[in-house]
Amino acid sequence: MNSDVVTRLTRSMADHGYDAIVALSPENFAYLAGFVVPSQSLMRWRHAACVVTAQGECAILAVDMEETTVRTRAGETPVRIWGEFTDNAMQALAGLLSDLGLSAAKIGFERDYLAAGDFAALTRALPKAGFVAAERYLADLRQIKTADEIALMSRLARLADQAIAGALAGVSPGGSEMDIAGGLTRGVFALGADYFKLMIVATGERSVFPNVGPSARVLKDGDICRVEIFPVIGGYHAGVCRTARVGPAPDHAETVWRNLVECKYLVLDMIKPGASSRAIYEAFLGHLARLGLPPISFVGHGIGLGLHEEPYLGKYSDVPLEAGMVLGIEPLVYDTGYGFGMQNKDIVLVTETGCRLLSDVTDTDELVVVS
Amino acid sequence: MNSDVVTRLTRSMADHGYDAIVALSPENFAYLAGFVVPSQSLMRWRHAACVVTAQGECAILAVDMEETTVRTRAGETPVRIWGEFTDNAMQALAGLLSDLGLSAAKIGFERDYLAAGDFAALTRALPKAGFVAAERYLADLRQIKTADEIALMSRLARLADQAIAGALAGVSPGGSEMDIAGGLTRGVFALGADYFKLMIVATGERSVFPNVGPSARVLKDGDICRVEIFPVIGGYHAGVCRTARVGPAPDHAETVWRNLVECKYLVLDMIKPGASSRAIYEAFLGHLARLGLPPISFVGHGIGLGLHEEPYLGKYSDVPLEAGMVLGIEPLVYDTGYGFGMQNKDIVLVTETGCRLLSDVTDTDELVVVS
Repeated sequence: MNSDVVTRLTRSMADHGYDAIVALSPENFAYLAGFVVPSQSLMRWRHAACVVTAQGECAILAVDMEETTVRTRAGETPVRIWGEFTDNAMQALAGLLSDLGLSAAKIGFERDYLAAGDFAALTRALPKAGFVAAERYLADLRQIKTADEIALMSRLARLADQAIAGALAGVSPGGSEMDIAGGLTRGVFALGADYFKLMIVATGERSVFPNVGPSARVLKDGDICRVEIFPVIGGYHAGVCRTARVGPAPDHAETVWRNLVECKYLVLDMIKPGASSRAIYEAFLGHLARLGLPPISFVGHGIGLGLHEEPYLGKYSDVPLEAGMVLGIEPLVYDTGYGFGMQNKDIVLVTETGCRLLSDVTDTDELVVVS
Repeated sequence: MNSDVVTRLTRSMADHGYDAIVALSPENFAYLAGFVVPSQSLMRWRHAACVVTAQGECAILAVDMEETTVRTRAGETPVRIWGEFTDNAMQALAGLLSDLGLSAAKIGFERDYLAAGDFAALTRALPKAGFVAAERYLADLRQIKTADEIALMSRLARLADQAIAGALAGVSPGGSEMDIAGGLTRGVFALGADYFKLMIVATGERSVFPNVGPSARVLKDGDICRVEIFPVIGGYHAGVCRTARVGPAPDHAETVWRNLVECKYLVLDMIKPGASSRAIYEAFLGHLARLGLPPISFVGHGIGLGLHEEPYLGKYSDVPLEAGMVLGIEPLVYDTGYGFGMQNKDIVLVTETGCRLLSDVTDTDELVVVS
């Protein structure tokens, strides 16, 4: 179990009206248990559940195919196994909850994750229990990272940054997007990632497309290259994006880049406990507007077990930032209108007094150069 | 839209009691629409829906962040957009269903996917509609691949096989698992994959572990190497696994491999329309037993938009195979007890008269040699 998270839960769950929390999504399972069940997110029916009661009692439910992995990782937490082809996962979960004395309890669950059919089966099996939405409660807790989470996010941010730097340093004009991708994927695994999500390698005229993987396109002088990756360790992600020029920068590129760098420092200067998330977005908007270019609807967002988490630094919400939040911030212009796009995505920790850049390997004050 | 799938749906949906089908999972959205919404599976709240009525009318719902991608791919199918930060996706879906004349219809939906909270919102918004489980109906349809799906699965199977062959050919004793991984990931992208899922690079003493990624372990003579990857194109996967020896094979390796190869041909010989899935598993079991080694609970399974689909060739179900099914078959022993594991995973199409090996790049009659 993740003992810091269990402590947080047991401290606050009763105040929120829960006798227990059952986490069923891959993200919240990992949040409570402190580890990932490998196939849970690949095969939705392979349910895993992590239960924590208001008294701090913990238990784990997992599918037989993952028994060895789960027992190894669970330590002293009791593990109950259900058979993929022989049992019903919800009946097994109901049995576990019953054995924990929760058959008539108020149980917080993820109403935004548990499928309607499974929810019906669970409530049929535990007719006296009260199932109450807990996704907002868990999302709120997840916004403030624990010390271990901060250390992991810091490692992931530097890992992504370093892998991109290595991949860009390993190519020259005449190399291809595939060469960047090969260096990048090798880099993230070599640096210790379990996996990665979303790899963007977008160069030259392709740099204007938001989400494109590598192609056979050959790099040539005057290209702008956008390269992004989200390495994953233990279910946590950090996304970093860097922009490079091949040889001399194309017209307007230095101007746009300078603005984006100014936006980065503007945002970093404003991030601190108590700062308004919307005010930061609006300041970004105001500065980007000098380019006469359209912004996306946010300049940053929480990140961790989810690719995007609350809070957003955007136009549709306004929350005060708090110490311990980890944010992705991404001044970007997908399509400058000049035939290229640019993006500078970093990972930032809100500290007691301001913020700390976690993706601090590459100096992005000037465009990275591929030569 | 995937017109072959729409034809199948409109032919059979009324007989199953549906006035319309609404696909909300990434897999079934891709099955009906014929394309993937990039962030749908990464961020669960970014709902996309594909609706097909019994009369063959089609419509798509997508989040604003994916509007350009979806409109480009949707062709003439009407697209309705909901705002990630400004709308409720289920209200938007209810509006779309209403406008299609379905506000009092029997609507087939995925009871095993749509979250309880979303289902409650949808039924509240369309109180006269009847929502009926359709996941089994869709899974049954998906078992028999269309001509386009077969072509894609064939391409993916060869792509995986070729990428593994290339990665193994590119290393020598003294190289590392990271070198294999670098060659492999570069290979799958260079050969046209959008992405991949699950990369297993398990060599030497690590070859006994079911699901492990690459480590810094250096290859040496006498190692057994298990290498598996699932490249992805348009949401479809094909998984191929190959086993190699570095220099001379360790004791018992040739004997185990010969048995697994015999198991492969035994299974291929039995796969044809009408064959019993369980009889094939039992024949595999009987042959593998000659090694005195424990089997897993299936020797094959359907594959396509899901990593595992029905039918399983295993002990817990028995169905007659049908032409058009695409199966992963995987004679394997994770832990031989001799310090190594071996696996030979192929992709096979059930034809009118028997079956066709789709992953036919590597000759697996003998162990691949790394030298």
